[in-house]
Amino acid sequence: MKVTLLDGEVKVYDKPRQVADIAGDIAISLKKKCIGALINDKDVVTSGAIIDKDCKLEIITERHELYRSAVNYTAKIITGFAVKSLYPDADLVPQNDDLSLEEFSLFFDYPQGLKFEDLKAVENLANEMIKDNKPFSFGEASEEECLKKLKDINKNPIYLEAVKEDSEKRYIKYEVGKFGGLEFFARYAMLKSTGSLYKIELTQLTGAYFQGDASNPMIYRLHGITGDSKESFEKVQETIEEMKNSDHKYIAKNLEIFHLDPIIGQGLPIWLPNGAILKQEIKKYLMEKEFEFDFIQIETPIIGTSELYKRSGHWDHYRDDMFAPMHLPKEEMVLKPMSCPHHISVYNYKQRSYRELPLRFAEHALQHRYESSGSLTGLERVRAMELTDSHIFVRPDQVKEEFSRCFALIQEVLETFNIKIDYLSLSLRDPKDKQKYFDDDKMWNEAEKQLEEVLKELKLEYKKMPGEAAFYGPKLDIQAKTALGHEITVSTIQLDFLLPQKFNLSYVGPNGDLLKPIMIHRGLVGTYERFISVLLEQTKGVLPLWCSPRQVEIIPVQQSGAFDYAEQVKAELRKHYIRAGIDNRDERLSYKIRDAQIKKIPYQVVLGEAEEANKTITYRQYGSEEQVTVKLDEFIKMLKEKIDSKEYS
Amino acid sequence: MKVTLLDGEVKVYDKPRQVADIAGDIAISLKKKCIGALINDKDVVTSGAIIDKDCKLEIITERHELYRSAVNYTAKIITGFAVKSLYPDADLVPQNDDLSLEEFSLFFDYPQGLKFEDLKAVENLANEMIKDNKPFSFGEASEEECLKKLKDINKNPIYLEAVKEDSEKRYIKYEVGKFGGLEFFARYAMLKSTGSLYKIELTQLTGAYFQGDASNPMIYRLHGITGDSKESFEKVQETIEEMKNSDHKYIAKNLEIFHLDPIIGQGLPIWLPNGAILKQEIKKYLMEKEFEFDFIQIETPIIGTSELYKRSGHWDHYRDDMFAPMHLPKEEMVLKPMSCPHHISVYNYKQRSYRELPLRFAEHALQHRYESSGSLTGLERVRAMELTDSHIFVRPDQVKEEFSRCFALIQEVLETFNIKIDYLSLSLRDPKDKQKYFDDDKMWNEAEKQLEEVLKELKLEYKKMPGEAAFYGPKLDIQAKTALGHEITVSTIQLDFLLPQKFNLSYVGPNGDLLKPIMIHRGLVGTYERFISVLLEQTKGVLPLWCSPRQVEIIPVQQSGAFDYAEQVKAELRKHYIRAGIDNRDERLSYKIRDAQIKKIPYQVVLGEAEEANKTITYRQYGSEEQVTVKLDEFIKMLKEKIDSKEYS
Repeated sequence: MKVTLLDGEVKVYDKPRQVADIAGDIAISLKKKCIGALINDKDVVTSGAIIDKDCKLEIITERHELYRSAVNYTAKIITGFAVKSLYPDADLVPQNDDLSLEEFSLFFDYPQGLKFEDLKAVENLANEMIKDNKPFSFGEASEEECLKKLKDINKNPIYLEAVKEDSEKRYIKYEVGKFGGLEFFARYAMLKSTGSLYKIELTQLTGAYFQGDASNPMIYRLHGITGDSKESFEKVQETIEEMKNSDHKYIAKNLEIFHLDPIIGQGLPIWLPNGAILKQEIKKYLMEKEFEFDFIQIETPIIGTSELYKRSGHWDHYRDDMFAPMHLPKEEMVLKPMSCPHHISVYNYKQRSYRELPLRFAEHALQHRYESSGSLTGLERVRAMELTDSHIFVRPDQVKEEFSRCFALIQEVLETFNIKIDYLSLSLRDPKDKQKYFDDDKMWNEAEKQLEEVLKELKLEYKKMPGEAAFYGPKLDIQAKTALGHEITVSTIQLDFLLPQKFNLSYVGPNGDLLKPIMIHRGLVGTYERFISVLLEQTKGVLPLWCSPRQVEIIPVQQSGAFDYAEQVKAELRKHYIRAGIDNRDERLSYKIRDAQIKKIPYQVVLGEAEEANKTITYRQYGSEEQVTVKLDEFIKMLKEKIDSKEYS
Repeated sequence: MKVTLLDGEVKVYDKPRQVADIAGDIAISLKKKCIGALINDKDVVTSGAIIDKDCKLEIITERHELYRSAVNYTAKIITGFAVKSLYPDADLVPQNDDLSLEEFSLFFDYPQGLKFEDLKAVENLANEMIKDNKPFSFGEASEEECLKKLKDINKNPIYLEAVKEDSEKRYIKYEVGKFGGLEFFARYAMLKSTGSLYKIELTQLTGAYFQGDASNPMIYRLHGITGDSKESFEKVQETIEEMKNSDHKYIAKNLEIFHLDPIIGQGLPIWLPNGAILKQEIKKYLMEKEFEFDFIQIETPIIGTSELYKRSGHWDHYRDDMFAPMHLPKEEMVLKPMSCPHHISVYNYKQRSYRELPLRFAEHALQHRYESSGSLTGLERVRAMELTDSHIFVRPDQVKEEFSRCFALIQEVLETFNIKIDYLSLSLRDPKDKQKYFDDDKMWNEAEKQLEEVLKELKLEYKKMPGEAAFYGPKLDIQAKTALGHEITVSTIQLDFLLPQKFNLSYVGPNGDLLKPIMIHRGLVGTYERFISVLLEQTKGVLPLWCSPRQVEIIPVQQSGAFDYAEQVKAELRKHYIRAGIDNRDERLSYKIRDAQIKKIPYQVVLGEAEEANKTITYRQYGSEEQVTVKLDEFIKMLKEKIDSKEYS
C-alpha cells in the first residue's frame, strides 16, 4: 500500500495503518497534533481511521485550513449527544452542510415538536460535557455493526438509507467514534477530547427539508457557535456581530424584510410586510421618475410559449438558465427569463409611425431564472426577480439622444440612493465567438461604434470588456460605488439590432417606407431583490425616511395614561399616509426606546401628560439624542416635506 | 337505406339520394327552399350531398336556426374565390370557426404578406360576383380527385393533411361545389347562388395560428359581414355597432387597453400603455383604502412546489384548473392558482401572539388557471389574472367584527365605482357531498352558523346556496348591480377552519396556550381583469377622470402657432402628474376634437392666440358642449380636486 504525502514523498506499508500512526511516521510530534486527514483531496477522516488502500494523504493539524471545520464538527457531535440524552426519541439526521462557516449546525428530527427555548438544557449539557473533558477515540466497524447502531439512533428509515448512500462514496465507509461509554459515527476530522472546545452557544432553531428536497420531511436545524479557546470563540461572536451589521441577510432578518420557505420553493423570496412596503415605495418613486422621463408603463404576462423564445434566440442562449417548460395540450409554456419578446409584442401590435418614436416601454417585470441551488443567496441571488426593465424603440438618428436621456435618468435615481457612478464598462463581442454572438459583422461594428461615439460625446470614462456583450448586441454597464465603497453593477443600457430583425419590426417613415427601428434595453436599478440587498448593506438597515417600513414609533409614557392620545396621534399621522405604529407593550419607556432604535425606526415619538395637555408631541430622530417638542401638525408638515424630497438621511 | 326525419317519420330508399330530392319527397315546395341538411345532429352538408347510409336528417331552410351560418358560409366561399382570383399564390386554409356569429371569417396564408388596405379589391370583386348572381351546384368527388384539387389550391402540405383528417370525421367525406367554371370544397349548407347575398363588407384583417397552435404557422384571418337582404345586412351592422358600445372587448380595443398575442400564449392579456395606467390607478386607490382599513401588503412568489398544494388540498380539488407542473431536478413547481398557502407561510414564519390578531395580509396577486381555450373571452375569462386578495387571521371572538369591517371596505370601494350592492349570496356546503367538502360536521356547522349570525346582526338580506361553498368553508358572495343593471359577483368573504388545521397554525393565547386562528379569505373586487371588463362595459369607456389613461388632450389651433405654448401647458400639467398629451397632427380642429371625443378623453383643451396671450386655457369636458376659459393654475387646481375626490363622472 502506497501513501503519497503532501510533499510528494511516498510511504509504503505492507498492512493497514492508522492515520495518527502515519502522522507519527512523518514526525513524532505530528502524531499528537494530528486530528484527522484529508484523503485524495476530498474525503476527510478522523485520526483513528485505518488506511488500507493506495491514496494521497494530508495530515490535518491546528494549522490546516480545515481546522476550523473540525472544531465545528466536534461541537456538532457534542451537541448531538446532548440532544439524544435529553430527547432520546429524536433522530439525528445526516445532512451535508458547510462546516467552514462561523456557525455549526445540527440537523435532527423530533416529530413531537419543540421550541428553541426548550434547548437551553441541551446547551447546558453540552457545556458540562466540555468541562468534563472526555477523550474521543476512533475505530472502524463492519457495515453490519454500523447499520445496527444506526438503527438504534434513528427510527426513520430514510435517514439510514441516506447514510448508506453517502458512505458508498467515501474513502472509509464505516468509522466509529467513542466517547465515555457512548458511540457515534465519526465522519470528519475531530479534536481529541470534549475539553478541546472552549464553549458551545446555541443561537437559533430553524427548519429545513431533509436533503433540501421539499418532498422529504421537514427537520430541525439547530444553529450554534463554538471555538477552541476564549479568543477564538469571541472572534466568532464578533464576526457574526459584524455580519449582522453588514450582511443584508442579517439586516433583512432583523427588519423582517423577506423570508424563504422551502415548501414554496428555493430562491423565491417572500416579501414580508416591511419588505413589501420598502419595495413598493421604491417602485412608486421609480415609476414617478419614469413618468417624468416620458416612459410608458406596460404589463406583460410572466409566461410565454417556447416558440416565442425560440424565435427570440433566448431558447438557444439562455435555455440552461430557464425553468423547465410546462407541457400543455396545445402549447409548451415557460416562465419568462426576460421580457424583450413581450415588449416587442406590444410594439408590434399595430403599425408604428416614425412620429411615435422613441417609444419607451417600461415594466417592473417579474422574471424567473433557474439558478443552481448552491448559488442562491438571500436577496442577492434568487430564482424569481422583479426587474426595473425597459425597452426603447428608436430611429437610427435618435440613438445618441436617447442614450444620454437613459443615462441622465439612471444618474438621478442612483443619486437619490446616495450611490455614485464610478465608471462605465463597455461590453463588446468577441468577434471569434460565433456561437454566442450572431454573425453579422456589419451590424456589430455599427452598434459598437455608435455606443462608443455616445460615450465620447458625453465625455464619460469607460473600460472596454471584449467577450462580455449580450448575444444580441453590445452593452454598457454602469458601475457604481455604494456608500460602503462596494463596486456594484445595477444599471445597464444595451443596443440591439438583432431582435428588431428577428421579429421583423418596422415603422412607417416620413416617405411612407417601412423602416427598421433599433431597440435599447435599459435596466434602471437592476432587480428589486438585488438593489434592496445593496441598499440594506449600504444603510446598515437605517433606511431613508421616505421608504422606511415604519416611519414613526409612538411610545406612550406608561404612567401618564396617554394611550387614547397615542391613538389619536397615530390616526392623524396615518391619515397623511405616514406609517406610524404604537408600542403599547407593558414595558419600561427606556426599553421601548431602545427597541425602536434596534428596529431602526426613523422617528420615535414619546407622549406623556404634558404632550396630551398641550396637544404636542416629543420626537427623537434615529441616531440623535436630541428631543424636540412640537405641535402635531408641525411634526406632520416636517415629515411630509422630508418624505416628498426623498431626503437621504 | 333508412332516413329518419325530424318528426320521426322514416323514409326508406333502395339507392343513394340527394338531399334536395329527399326534401322534395317530404314536400314539393321544400326542395326549392332546401339549402342543406343537418345529418345525425352534427354534420352539415349541402343540398347537393348524396345520402347513402342510414341517418337522421333535418332539412335546413331559411327558417332553420343554422340559416345564419349558411349565409356566413356562402360569404366565406365567395370571399375565398375573390382572394384566390387576385392572389393566386394564397393558400385558403381550412380552419374551424363559429359560423353563427355576426361576422364571418376567411383564413388564408400568403407568405408574401399583405395589408388590410390591399383587400379593398377583394371586397369589390366579391360584390361583383354577388351582382353577377351565379348559381352554385354541388356534387360528390372521389378522395383522389379531391386531393388533387386541394393540391392545386394549397401549396402548404399541412393544410392538405388537416382537410384529410377533418374529412375522416364527417358524414360525407368529399363534397365539391361548382360555381361558373370554378370548383371548391363545399363543407356546409349554402345559399343557392351568389346573388342570394345582398352584400359583403370586409371589416378587418388579423392574425391567427393555424389550428390555434403556436407551433403552426401564423395565418391571416379576414373578417367580414354579410346578409341576404338589405335589412339583414343592416341588422348585422347595427348589432356590431351595439356590441362596440357595450362589449368590453370592443371598448377596450378602441381605448387600446389590452392585447392578446397567440405566440405569447392564449388567455394571457398584455396590458397596453392605457390599460396599464387604468389598472395601476385602480390598484393605487385600492391599496390606499387597504391602508386605511389596516391591511398589510405582502408579496409572495407566483409559483410553489406541488407539495405545497398537495398539503393545502388544492391539488386534489383544483388540479384540473392548474397549469401543468414544471419538472425540476429536485422539485416539481406549479404556477399558483391561489395564494392561500403562500399567505399561510407568512403567518407561520414566526410564532404569532394573540396581541397581533387580526393579521390582515393583502396582496394584489398574480395567479394562473388553465381555463379551456374555448371559454377564454377578452378580459372576462383569462388564464393569468391579478386578484385583489387578502387572508385575515383572527381569533374566534374577532370573526364578527372583522367580517363587518371587510364588508364596509367592499361597500366603500364599490360605491366609488358606482356599483351598488344588490344582495348577498351565502354559499353553504352540500352535507352529502363528502368528496368535495372535507368531512367534519362540527366545523362546518360552526362556520356556517357564525356567518349567518353576522349577516343577521348586520341586517343584511341574503340567499342561501347549498352546495356552492369552497372546499374549505362557507362563503359569502357580494352580488352587485352595475350602472347597466348587470348582476355581477366581484367581492367575496369566506370563512376557513380547514387550512389553519392542515398547516397547523397557532398563536400564543393570553395564558400562554397555543390556540388555532380562523382564516378569512377576502376578494376585494375580484380580479383586475374581470373588474376592468365590468368597468368598461358600465362606463361604455367613459372612465372617471382619476383613472382615465389620458386625462387631458391639448389641441393647439393650427393657424395660431400656439405649439410652444401647448408644450408649456403639457409640461405644467405633467409636473402635477396629470396625464396630458398634445394632438399636433396636421388635421383640422374639428377633426381633432371629434377624435378626442371618440377616445373618450375627459378634458379637451383648445389653445389659440387668445389663450397664449392671456396664459389661459379653454377646456371642454367630455360630453358637454360648454367651453370654459380659465387660468392654467385654476384648471390644474380643479382637476386635482376632482382626481383626489375620485369623482365618478
